[in-house]
Amino acid sequence: MPIRYLHTMVRVLDLERSKAFYELLGLRETRRHESPGGRFTLVFMAPPGQEDCPVELTWNWDGDPGLPADSRHFGHLAYEVDDLYALCARLRAGGVTINRPPRDGRMAFVRSPDNVSVELLQTGAPLAPAEPWASMPNTGHW
Amino acid sequence: MPIRYLHTMVRVLDLERSKAFYELLGLRETRRHESPGGRFTLVFMAPPGQEDCPVELTWNWDGDPGLPADSRHFGHLAYEVDDLYALCARLRAGGVTINRPPRDGRMAFVRSPDNVSVELLQTGAPLAPAEPWASMPNTGHW
Repeated sequence: MPIRYLHTMVRVLDLERSKAFYELLGLRETRRHESPGGRFTLVFMAPPGQEDCPVELTWNWDGDPGLPADSRHFGHLAYEVDDLYALCARLRAGGVTINRPPRDGRMAFVRSPDNVSVELLQTGAPLAPAEPWASMPNTGHW
Repeated sequence: MPIRYLHTMVRVLDLERSKAFYELLGLRETRRHESPGGRFTLVFMAPPGQEDCPVELTWNWDGDPGLPADSRHFGHLAYEVDDLYALCARLRAGGVTINRPPRDGRMAFVRSPDNVSVELLQTGAPLAPAEPWASMPNTGHW
């Protein structure tokens, strides 16, 4: 009996802010479903060429007061990139805090607008240590 | 700048129970990393043929008291199967509660041992309504 992975769903409080965050990462919207009856919108976003691995953003139009400020239960989404420093620079320019800067040239963590943890890994060998990352302290946890 | 999806990580309190749950779904262990220094184990599990879409189970050997009993923040993992009734029967035989039975022949929800919500969808057209699912009530939420 085959089974096929479809998506990972996370709830978001502000769809536009979350969409902008995942676009900064390099994901693109691949599909959208609006439900006026259920008063919610689903937006699927995936890396180009990996349309079968989307994150599904669920936005309830009337808010979601049950959403915690943090969630230990859920770990993180993880993505790999060819230039971790360039991506972190783009995120930073877009107003995203680099919670765990890539001091080692290998790994960084950021948070979505809803505090969903996102792990970013350098493809292949680590980059050589470089500023501003090498001396940047951690911010919060992730 | 390309970006590549790697995994979705969830924390687990009992690695063997969680591994058994994802095996019941039809996922297989694809990779494992033991860290005696960090006192944690990472187990990657994916559908056969979809090794690039794993869920990463993070098991901290000394427990994780911060893990909530439920988590609104994280939505769900989603999988598609060829025979939703057969899968729900296998899960039920394995002791898994079918929180949202597939009354419509199309969709079911179950929970992992740590209450991570898992959505199961029938591939293609819905199945014809059939017992015991058609008359089975919901259990809890998901």
